[in-house]
Amino acid sequence: MSILIRDVQVEGEITQVYIEGNRIAEIGKRREADVVIDGRGKVALPGFVNLHTHSAMTLFRGWADDLDLSTWLETRIWPAEAKLTPDDVYWGAKLAGLEMIKSGITTFNDMYFHMDQVAKATRELGLRAFLAEGIIDLNDPERAVKQIRTAEEMNRRIEGMKVDRITPVFGPHAIYTVSRDSLLRIRELADKRGSLIHLHLSETKREVDDCLVETGMRPVKYLDSLGFLAKDVIAAHGCWLDPSEIEILAHTGAKVAHCPVSNMKLATGAAIPYDALREAGVVMGLGTDGPASSNRLDMFEAMKFAALLQKFATGDPKVLPAPEVFELASLGGAKALGIDAGVIGVDRLADLILIDPRRPELAPRHSDVSNWVYSAHGSVVDTTICDGAVLMRNGRVKGESEILERASQVAQDLVTRE
Amino acid sequence: MSILIRDVQVEGEITQVYIEGNRIAEIGKRREADVVIDGRGKVALPGFVNLHTHSAMTLFRGWADDLDLSTWLETRIWPAEAKLTPDDVYWGAKLAGLEMIKSGITTFNDMYFHMDQVAKATRELGLRAFLAEGIIDLNDPERAVKQIRTAEEMNRRIEGMKVDRITPVFGPHAIYTVSRDSLLRIRELADKRGSLIHLHLSETKREVDDCLVETGMRPVKYLDSLGFLAKDVIAAHGCWLDPSEIEILAHTGAKVAHCPVSNMKLATGAAIPYDALREAGVVMGLGTDGPASSNRLDMFEAMKFAALLQKFATGDPKVLPAPEVFELASLGGAKALGIDAGVIGVDRLADLILIDPRRPELAPRHSDVSNWVYSAHGSVVDTTICDGAVLMRNGRVKGESEILERASQVAQDLVTRE
Repeated sequence: MSILIRDVQVEGEITQVYIEGNRIAEIGKRREADVVIDGRGKVALPGFVNLHTHSAMTLFRGWADDLDLSTWLETRIWPAEAKLTPDDVYWGAKLAGLEMIKSGITTFNDMYFHMDQVAKATRELGLRAFLAEGIIDLNDPERAVKQIRTAEEMNRRIEGMKVDRITPVFGPHAIYTVSRDSLLRIRELADKRGSLIHLHLSETKREVDDCLVETGMRPVKYLDSLGFLAKDVIAAHGCWLDPSEIEILAHTGAKVAHCPVSNMKLATGAAIPYDALREAGVVMGLGTDGPASSNRLDMFEAMKFAALLQKFATGDPKVLPAPEVFELASLGGAKALGIDAGVIGVDRLADLILIDPRRPELAPRHSDVSNWVYSAHGSVVDTTICDGAVLMRNGRVKGESEILERASQVAQDLVTRE
Repeated sequence: MSILIRDVQVEGEITQVYIEGNRIAEIGKRREADVVIDGRGKVALPGFVNLHTHSAMTLFRGWADDLDLSTWLETRIWPAEAKLTPDDVYWGAKLAGLEMIKSGITTFNDMYFHMDQVAKATRELGLRAFLAEGIIDLNDPERAVKQIRTAEEMNRRIEGMKVDRITPVFGPHAIYTVSRDSLLRIRELADKRGSLIHLHLSETKREVDDCLVETGMRPVKYLDSLGFLAKDVIAAHGCWLDPSEIEILAHTGAKVAHCPVSNMKLATGAAIPYDALREAGVVMGLGTDGPASSNRLDMFEAMKFAALLQKFATGDPKVLPAPEVFELASLGGAKALGIDAGVIGVDRLADLILIDPRRPELAPRHSDVSNWVYSAHGSVVDTTICDGAVLMRNGRVKGESEILERASQVAQDLVTRE
């Protein structure tokens, strides 16, 4: 299977992009291809990498906003999640995938429950995904055994699907929900299986304070003392990192997923120390977080929030300029996950999107990258290609209305279910 | 001229909206009308009121981002503005108007130069506008005379157009750019003409500090000592208001336009004290600010930024919940400007929009208002009606491509002009 994108703008030049299989095979020459896409007037960009989300939580979008974290979790989310069925998660993930395709995301790094269902939805939709069954043992050894067994079983099922673009990952939820023993066990399993590890880290001040009380160490130091941190760890949030922790992240090679929208909406109280992380050489990407807390799966929105939050929190409008935030959302995430994506180049994965810039909010075109970061939203995306397959063309995705209808029904049923 | 919107959802109920002339004449009964719009599956909302912008600055969108304020003004914006022609402003305002119509804004409160051109563009596009020629005298008495004369002349020209939906306003830029004598003179003129006054107030800490040094008073106290503040004053920003100033705003009846996106992007360092202003009974609305500093003229985006900035800055996720921020963006702005808009009701101005909620980011529909505030962007708007005239239908505005082309040319020419 081959695709030619004709006469499209790539990094300021009009050129030809030729895709063979799931890779970009050539840039510059017009070639015969099975599918020819007219790129005239359009701009090709790398597909975005959503480095932290809980995609199936689309089911809870708008259902419990403007609450404090404990009310939100204890009276709304946890009771509803206790009733989640595999079918719910399947439709929630389908809705999320549809939204991601429509807003130009080609890869997502996900943590939730019933992840075999997310894998099934992702296989059907054509996205690239890293999927972690969330592990929460609440210091209960019996629960720990069960949770790790479930996670291993899910990972086996996902591997059994033999879809290259879908990769199982270990997902210990956070240091305050997963015991020391389980963290050690997960580290061991990840080494054995060669899997990534995806967790929440240093999101709230309470997490840091509690960790200090219980272990005498800050969260990153605590994890490092267990030998947990390494190049294969992706830590979401990192709002409350101190300089010594940034140093540890840098030398262990752990990655950070910044989620500005949920940090602001849930009032985590501190912005990620972006410049210090960058100077230390920590690989960072950008995430939307789950739609129950951030509402949207739109990396354009996440880019604008990331840039503006840094400027506001530091008092310096020069921090996190547009080209850097665009890189976070694309190449940064790809590096964190170890995939050959995030830029348009020969031999890279054919994960890319086309934008039609003929819209009032994208005019004039003094700086395209400023326009993508500060003016665009997901709706500017016209075409989405992932792993060499066209997932959306002219803004339309196959099966869209069925997904909207079924996911809406499931969501309504879930929150009213006895 | 009459319009019937058939079978449309208004505040949760399916109903009929009948418009006669520029008012909503009846809600509930299906009547004969000159134009019938099928509202099935759609939701009608009040058109948004953009309470503070510099619309023609679309010309500078993306041209000078990520700079500190003094570099931005002194090396980029001011030198370029010195070359602005009336024709530039006309096309900049056309582009802005197009963007506002497409994202559901029906009224805007604008301050810039060559405002007769903005009036001309607004008349052609069909929007409702309050237009202020910016007055900046830099304490130079000669300049003051000229600037006030120009403003008066512009206001006369705008009044001379005799378009009810376009209203001239006085626009003293700010206390640090306009002398005491000019402020007094403008107060006098506004009383005589019955005009509103639109200015920037308490945007940065430097403004407060300088005012304390020069007058011994904080900005609001200083203005009040001149007898300047009254019900007809709309003050943009208000980031650095202290409790005594909030008290003065409340008892004088002055209004506040909150601009969260530009406050964050320019790193003003403090968020508006929203809850204190609300408790004091100060009328507030929401503004996008100009597209040179906020990039977008999209009130959906401004709503999400407003809510999230309050939560982040106060540490309380319950502050500024979705229904309140929606009211800021609609009824709040309408009250500030003294127009019968901002809600859909009988005898109100026919300023309203239709949204098609069949989109992944607006599913499920647990709470429509949460979806509008936290999930929607301007692109969800399908139909825009202002003053009883249909400005957009099915997402298309008449003359769209000519505006894009001409405004882009003008913008390119402006920044390269010798």
